[in-house]
Amino acid sequence: MSEVYGNRRRRLRDRCAAAGSAAVLVSRPANVRYLAGVAPPGAVLLLGPREDTLLCPRTPNGDPVDGHLDEELRLTVLPAGEGDPAEAAAGSALAAGAESLAVEEHHLTVARHRALGAAAPGLAVTDLGPAVEQQRVVKDEEEIACLRIAAEITDQALGELLESILVGRTERHLALELERRLVDHGADGPAFATSVATGPHAGLAAHRPSDRRVEEGDFLSVSLGAAYRGYRCEIGRTFVIGTSPADWQIELYELVFAAQRAGREALLPGTACRDVDRAARQILDAAGHGEELPPRTGHGVGLEIGEDPQLAPAAMGKLDACVPVTVEPGVHLPGRGGVRIDDTLVVRQEADGGPELLTITTKELLAL
Amino acid sequence: MSEVYGNRRRRLRDRCAAAGSAAVLVSRPANVRYLAGVAPPGAVLLLGPREDTLLCPRTPNGDPVDGHLDEELRLTVLPAGEGDPAEAAAGSALAAGAESLAVEEHHLTVARHRALGAAAPGLAVTDLGPAVEQQRVVKDEEEIACLRIAAEITDQALGELLESILVGRTERHLALELERRLVDHGADGPAFATSVATGPHAGLAAHRPSDRRVEEGDFLSVSLGAAYRGYRCEIGRTFVIGTSPADWQIELYELVFAAQRAGREALLPGTACRDVDRAARQILDAAGHGEELPPRTGHGVGLEIGEDPQLAPAAMGKLDACVPVTVEPGVHLPGRGGVRIDDTLVVRQEADGGPELLTITTKELLAL
Repeated sequence: MSEVYGNRRRRLRDRCAAAGSAAVLVSRPANVRYLAGVAPPGAVLLLGPREDTLLCPRTPNGDPVDGHLDEELRLTVLPAGEGDPAEAAAGSALAAGAESLAVEEHHLTVARHRALGAAAPGLAVTDLGPAVEQQRVVKDEEEIACLRIAAEITDQALGELLESILVGRTERHLALELERRLVDHGADGPAFATSVATGPHAGLAAHRPSDRRVEEGDFLSVSLGAAYRGYRCEIGRTFVIGTSPADWQIELYELVFAAQRAGREALLPGTACRDVDRAARQILDAAGHGEELPPRTGHGVGLEIGEDPQLAPAAMGKLDACVPVTVEPGVHLPGRGGVRIDDTLVVRQEADGGPELLTITTKELLAL
Repeated sequence: MSEVYGNRRRRLRDRCAAAGSAAVLVSRPANVRYLAGVAPPGAVLLLGPREDTLLCPRTPNGDPVDGHLDEELRLTVLPAGEGDPAEAAAGSALAAGAESLAVEEHHLTVARHRALGAAAPGLAVTDLGPAVEQQRVVKDEEEIACLRIAAEITDQALGELLESILVGRTERHLALELERRLVDHGADGPAFATSVATGPHAGLAAHRPSDRRVEEGDFLSVSLGAAYRGYRCEIGRTFVIGTSPADWQIELYELVFAAQRAGREALLPGTACRDVDRAARQILDAAGHGEELPPRTGHGVGLEIGEDPQLAPAAMGKLDACVPVTVEPGVHLPGRGGVRIDDTLVVRQEADGGPELLTITTKELLAL
């Protein structure tokens, strides 16, 4: 496993020609974790002229690195109060003969950037841009394996909830119980704040659980995901509470289901991201729900929720194979509630069977 | 309540002479919340020449503001994809006749700062520095009332845990149960990641709960806090599991207790922060535990955990009245475990009864 990280760092060096006198400083935590395998709080990764170094502040608990570092990676632990590891990294890049240092200007604050420059006078500080984020878009099989396990954990937690009594319980409690079950089944923790939305809240994206209780006849929509070894997946389902759904509930559910299926079926290498969004969006649009639609109908997942690619009307670029994304259209009718259906899938070649569905909980309309 | 925020903004204007042609842009979420009463994701606050404006991106759920804005504050909701509210704020500051804009260079990234400058050519962009953080150090009685409620919730959650069976349960489950109880009692959520540390982990600051189960004879240390209306408190306690503690456990507990009491008793207006730290630290030092000590023995709390002041050997400045701080010395013996005792208190004049203890759970050594 450990050579995986060395290989990723080599690919980054090649990509941004970070060799010889050009060093690279990675500070964004998810990027540090991608390239080093660990990301202790405050750690930064220096790809220097001669060697790669992970610089971390000392923690009160001693060793800041939980997990193993690959052999090619040097670890420097800074004493408490020795200032920002980014400054120390700039200093050692200069000392190692670097003439330039590319930093993540979309992550470093202006204050840190200035201090870093002052710590290494004569070093040309340039912008790395989102080079690491771009490298993270296409996943290797180790990463997809982690996402597959995250999805299994998520399906288990959701499946157990569906077997329990729901009427009378609050959104807040159901969300907490789902998060507990995620951890019970081996998640590092929730991939994002679990959302449980009942009645008029149902179908809202990222609804913050309230003290509203589940009632007969409600739509109930849930959105949750496990983080496993840092990899985050997402599932969203909508159910009806009671014996039989109302006609408007069935119609709305079938509409959103059709839109979500159209989005899933559009997931093929070479397809423009905006076309995947359009496939789902136009079905809801044609039914007169154009107004209530969220700005995007899906997004990439990995070490972060909501990473690239974005599935939205103005999104640029095409899908590649081995890119995990969500497809999550939804419609919310103010005052009445709504439906969201959300899966995590991996884009695959048609020859390989097409999109790989990771979150396998049924999408039938269940009456609970 | 609403005039509270207008008054805070006026004090900030006075403090940094933000008037006439000098505008201020606040982007750090806790600072936005302090000055506006709300902080929707991505929102920024502009103190402009003529009026104050909260700028937020539109959310999929419609109204981004949950909570009421004071009458003096204008709300601008940017359509999705209209770019960074900070850029929009710079543009409207310029349009409103501002010649300069002070920004939080310790929060804005280099990329945002550049985009903001480009969005308002001719506007002089300066550094606000930690002006809002400094203003936040001394709390008003509304803020202290929120902290008092947060502490009550925290004491309730901890008290309930102590009545339950602990042996055989994992650190992870106990931490999740504590967080559920915090929410049950009305917390917004946990103020920080709840820490439960058993046996050899006990006494570690910020230990991440593992799957280790509580055993007879263990030290068990817990660290938790509720967030209430954004205000975060902290409590830490250490217990022994079983009928009677071992001698070394009693000795170590009494030592840390004495250090924590010395720290608490040093909390008076005008006392240097480093002297509070020394009061606690020297007792542990004298007992030969100088090496195992964390870099600080306490810190301010409020809208953030770990805000200023810092109680540490190199800390500058003196305490003021109405500053809430933690006092949390601890000793960890590698392989054996240790003790941490942590309270949240408010610095008060001696005439007002001295330090006000918010977290009132007993500090006797309980055998559970």
